[in-house]
Amino acid sequence: MNSDSVAMTDLFEKMQKPETVCIFGTGDFGRSLGLRLLQSGYSVVYGSRDPKNSLLLPKGSKVMTHAAAACEAHVVFVAVQREHYGFLSSMVSDLEGKVLVDVSNNLKRGLYPESNAEYLSRLVPGATVVKAFNTISAWALQSGGLDANRQVLLCGDRSDAKQQLMDIAQSLGFTAVDRGSLRVAADLEDLPLQLFPLWRLPLNIAICLTAFIFFYALTRDVIYERVTNGKDIAFRIMISLANKAFPIVSLVMLSLCYLPGAMAGFLQLYNGTKYRRFPDWLDRWMLCRKQLGLLALAFGFLHVLYTLVIPIRYYVRYRINVYTISLVKDNTTYEFDNTAAWRYDSYYSMGILGFGLFVLLGITSLPSVSNSLNWREFSFVQSKLGYITLLLCTAHTFLYGWDRFLKPSSYRWWMPPAYMLSLVVPCVVLILKLILITPCVDSKVTRIRQGWERQGKTLANGRDTKTNQPLMA
Amino acid sequence: MNSDSVAMTDLFEKMQKPETVCIFGTGDFGRSLGLRLLQSGYSVVYGSRDPKNSLLLPKGSKVMTHAAAACEAHVVFVAVQREHYGFLSSMVSDLEGKVLVDVSNNLKRGLYPESNAEYLSRLVPGATVVKAFNTISAWALQSGGLDANRQVLLCGDRSDAKQQLMDIAQSLGFTAVDRGSLRVAADLEDLPLQLFPLWRLPLNIAICLTAFIFFYALTRDVIYERVTNGKDIAFRIMISLANKAFPIVSLVMLSLCYLPGAMAGFLQLYNGTKYRRFPDWLDRWMLCRKQLGLLALAFGFLHVLYTLVIPIRYYVRYRINVYTISLVKDNTTYEFDNTAAWRYDSYYSMGILGFGLFVLLGITSLPSVSNSLNWREFSFVQSKLGYITLLLCTAHTFLYGWDRFLKPSSYRWWMPPAYMLSLVVPCVVLILKLILITPCVDSKVTRIRQGWERQGKTLANGRDTKTNQPLMA
Amino acid sequence: MNSDSVAMTDLFEKMQKPETVCIFGTGDFGRSLGLRLLQSGYSVVYGSRDPKNSLLLPKGSKVMTHAAAACEAHVVFVAVQREHYGFLSSMVSDLEGKVLVDVSNNLKRGLYPESNAEYLSRLVPGATVVKAFNTISAWALQSGGLDANRQVLLCGDRSDAKQQLMDIAQSLGFTAVDRGSLRVAADLEDLPLQLFPLWRLPLNIAICLTAFIFFYALTRDVIYERVTNGKDIAFRIMISLANKAFPIVSLVMLSLCYLPGAMAGFLQLYNGTKYRRFPDWLDRWMLCRKQLGLLALAFGFLHVLYTLVIPIRYYVRYRINVYTISLVKDNTTYEFDNTAAWRYDSYYSMGILGFGLFVLLGITSLPSVSNSLNWREFSFVQSKLGYITLLLCTAHTFLYGWDRFLKPSSYRWWMPPAYMLSLVVPCVVLILKLILITPCVDSKVTRIRQGWERQGKTLANGRDTKTNQPLMA
Repeated sequence: MNSDSVAMTDLFEKMQKPETVCIFGTGDFGRSLGLRLLQSGYSVVYGSRDPKNSLLLPKGSKVMTHAAAACEAHVVFVAVQREHYGFLSSMVSDLEGKVLVDVSNNLKRGLYPESNAEYLSRLVPGATVVKAFNTISAWALQSGGLDANRQVLLCGDRSDAKQQLMDIAQSLGFTAVDRGSLRVAADLEDLPLQLFPLWRLPLNIAICLTAFIFFYALTRDVIYERVTNGKDIAFRIMISLANKAFPIVSLVMLSLCYLPGAMAGFLQLYNGTKYRRFPDWLDRWMLCRKQLGLLALAFGFLHVLYTLVIPIRYYVRYRINVYTISLVKDNTTYEFDNTAAWRYDSYYSMGILGFGLFVLLGITSLPSVSNSLNWREFSFVQSKLGYITLLLCTAHTFLYGWDRFLKPSSYRWWMPPAYMLSLVVPCVVLILKLILITPCVDSKVTRIRQGWERQGKTLANGRDTKTNQPLMA
Repeated sequence: MNSDSVAMTDLFEKMQKPETVCIFGTGDFGRSLGLRLLQSGYSVVYGSRDPKNSLLLPKGSKVMTHAAAACEAHVVFVAVQREHYGFLSSMVSDLEGKVLVDVSNNLKRGLYPESNAEYLSRLVPGATVVKAFNTISAWALQSGGLDANRQVLLCGDRSDAKQQLMDIAQSLGFTAVDRGSLRVAADLEDLPLQLFPLWRLPLNIAICLTAFIFFYALTRDVIYERVTNGKDIAFRIMISLANKAFPIVSLVMLSLCYLPGAMAGFLQLYNGTKYRRFPDWLDRWMLCRKQLGLLALAFGFLHVLYTLVIPIRYYVRYRINVYTISLVKDNTTYEFDNTAAWRYDSYYSMGILGFGLFVLLGITSLPSVSNSLNWREFSFVQSKLGYITLLLCTAHTFLYGWDRFLKPSSYRWWMPPAYMLSLVVPCVVLILKLILITPCVDSKVTRIRQGWERQGKTLANGRDTKTNQPLMA
Repeated sequence: MNSDSVAMTDLFEKMQKPETVCIFGTGDFGRSLGLRLLQSGYSVVYGSRDPKNSLLLPKGSKVMTHAAAACEAHVVFVAVQREHYGFLSSMVSDLEGKVLVDVSNNLKRGLYPESNAEYLSRLVPGATVVKAFNTISAWALQSGGLDANRQVLLCGDRSDAKQQLMDIAQSLGFTAVDRGSLRVAADLEDLPLQLFPLWRLPLNIAICLTAFIFFYALTRDVIYERVTNGKDIAFRIMISLANKAFPIVSLVMLSLCYLPGAMAGFLQLYNGTKYRRFPDWLDRWMLCRKQLGLLALAFGFLHVLYTLVIPIRYYVRYRINVYTISLVKDNTTYEFDNTAAWRYDSYYSMGILGFGLFVLLGITSLPSVSNSLNWREFSFVQSKLGYITLLLCTAHTFLYGWDRFLKPSSYRWWMPPAYMLSLVVPCVVLILKLILITPCVDSKVTRIRQGWERQGKTLANGRDTKTNQPLMA
């Protein structure tokens, strides 16, 4: 009976289209929202402190006092900044039973102990507060959101109120996503404030590494040549030097992406438990592994392109021509070097296979792909295939160097070739991993990761909580 | 108490498996749906006008009259075309309290003022109508939907009815997505009718541009050579000409993707407000920017591949050989040209970095990636990095041309080289952008985009609404 | 009234933060979950058989008997294996009205006739059971799930209980996805057990094919050369042979991806209906078409890279040099072969365009992209563009071979060149498709796919159900 009466009400509501929506606040967001609502067939009523001086509102909308506007609609958007919420506490009776939509954002994180939406809910206890539309910009409202994020994230304690907001979002061309109860509002309010928080550290590492390798190679190649032989080969900066820096940064960052995992394994072995929290720096490092890996992939991609343009470079063509001419003139017999053929072909082959796997890793880290994998599949790809990728890329670099590390001429001004530097971290990671997968160590790590704890160690920790910080202080 | 009794009913329902589902209509969709339901463990009852002559139904299902079939189940799929809904109005009492699932689509958009589902809801007011499964093809129902879209979009006014449909969709191997109340049904009914609506304009532009550049280059290179020197170099069509057309189309389309944004900025400056609707053509243009950009990326990708195969082409190897032999025979000393080395290396380097950034832009426009970005992040990538990409690609083209524009021999038949044509639009966009980011203009645009309006202008518009069309007529 | 009282309760609950959550079971998952809950601001109470000996629990949590712990919280996580659920049947009164969260997984599929969650619901009828968190690993709980799947899939019969779990998941940093009622639990329990089930068959095909082609080419190229001319060209294994195997496997797998569709078309023609189930092997084949296609793309990608490194290979440079020198020494005039120029350029051009379309097909099969397409769009891309891709790649291979199939020297040891083998399957597919799109056949297939059935055939089937297995036995 009750459910039928609800259905009748719904039907009744549908008949008396267009639905009226109220907006408190005539600022930019309020006006953009109102305009969009009008375009989607809603009636819009603005609530304003000074209805007579609100001239710039979209045509077709009405302006009234807050109280009068609230009477006209069931859904009230509060497009006012949190500091001005005060006036709402005097309107408790007008807003009784209404759906209040909090669209506000803060200028900084952690400005208030409580989310804006929860504060609003406390101010107007008789209304149902829904947090919504704060992740949508005024610009996206105007442009139809077609070229950006079309998701309206919302949260609130009452599902009927959320349903109404989902309908409005849908009518406006957005996709609504229910994120839970009003508790979650603080998370939603933090969302629009961040600018790639997890990418900062990896990006800084990448920039510093690139700069270091670049200047190192510049000194060793260009400046050394200038000083020693007086030759100007500065044009090599554009491709040769870039193609030294990019692969090195790529390899180092790929190994940095697997180093914390290996270190965590050893730490767990040492601690004899997995329930002790890692040091903060290791935690932060582990959280940005995905970003490290994707940056490594980007640099690897550039390396591939820089390598593939080699044969169409002017300099390379010049060198080959000069070499061929010298061969003709000297009339020497040109011997085929079987070892060189093996070496170069293996070198390229390792590189290609490594890059192929690397691209695969990159694809599986796309949100929609990783969401379709279960954790067994994801860890198989990211861990097993990841280590094979690292192995292939390291072998590629070793084959590139070949026996050059034996030749004294490689150490100009006592500086070894840049590629040697790049091999340090990957070799460390591979050796650590090799130790971790030896059967005796592996069985121990596996047991620890399944929850086993070394009893003696735990007691020792009881005695010495300072040096071995427990999981929860 | 109430909630417990609900839980008991649920439990009770679960016991009396298999659940029976009723399908009205024995056409293709009805049969495919019934087959799939049977395979997933449901009992299926068909409602038919002529139960005795319905021989082709899946084995295991029963056929009855509509009224008898409706009695057997709580959920009734209406797999009948809208024109034949009429008979349902005589069954109002049989369908009282049932969940009616509207699976229908129309043949064209806007055929009816009201969505099929809302019409159905009006015909049978006592039933709860859910719109669902209309975005799934009969073929996907049969093949299990594993190789296509697995999402069943649904909408309806009652959440319990939607929940039942979500369960059925889930049992059939689909993922159900709740899109809101029955109001949204019209949108869902439009979905299966479209065939890349936003891609049409960009695709047409791309095709026309490619054809134009191709014939331009054909005339200038192949036909000119034929007419003037009598040489047949038509084989160049396959790679050389393609590799002229693709990069030019790519660059022009990339700049077309940023041109409307720059024009909108100037228009807002001129209007003194952002609340005036743009002219229709600009609106339509802005809506397909993403598609323009992605097509530009596709053409850029082809350009990269066409460039990288250059050194393995027969023609190129022939030319190099002939050149080397001539060098040997003439016994000239082959001088290294430092400027050329700089120029070519910079040219390739710009191109590679530009393409790298371009790929990054492409990746961030994947739905799952752009949904994980907030609008600050998205606009940072698409606007800032986008302009850097455009800058790099334009520089790449300038370096390609170098001083050729000075040489009269470049202007065959008074036609400048094709690359020059491609530089016009990007240069215009970059100059417009340069003006927009000069501090004095920038501060004005920023203020306007934050909602500021020039007062005088607004009044002027009040006087002259014809030439300056207001936002909402 | 009723709804207001609910709102008040919500408000009241929010005040008395932190919320307390109970966990039954002190195993690995229970401890990881408790730790994460504590870190997210919840109070955690463990229920244990032996509260006094549970020393390894995260600090800040309390341990009690099961009954005492259940009293403390509204939400009870059952982190116990299904075999030990027995004790819960004695706690029915303690758990009355509580939300029981089943987080369990089984070791194998189909171990029990009923899902763990439904079994739990039967054991404790007074409680509301929600299935959740079983797709999250203990490791993801500890690491914050940031580098893996962040989706918590949940299902249950009561939406208020599910809402509570969604809030908890959200607070813990996960995204909750409602998958329906408790019926669906069995599906969720199967999810974490699989390891790329649909990739097995395609991967095995790819591995076998690669091995076969590799050894075939090894015999024909390397071993033949060794035996006949005594020359060691084993270095060719690394790139030349790989670059024979990869494109061949790619082309064969691409055509294997379209073969079942063509066969299904003929089977439907023969059957005279589309409502007869395909033979099992064809069904299984059709289900893994996407995986076949993606593997073909991966092999095609490797082929592209292997081809593009050709000009920087030592061996190739050596060969070109030797050739140039011989030209100089012999003093022959080096004639330009116009046909060769056409042939090679067309060959590369077909390959590039084919690969470009192939990448497009790959992109549209990303879950987030294919979800944004309706089935008309999806089938346009995957079917129409797919056949064009296959056509281009087959033409590419034909142009590669050119007139070699006429030369007896191509058949070493009576073995034709490997590329010829690769052409068999694509040609068969293209011919079948050509037949299917001839107007008379096409109209018949279209009618059948729209639900038409040949009457005589159906009757024949009635007589002979053994050889022509009906759709539903």
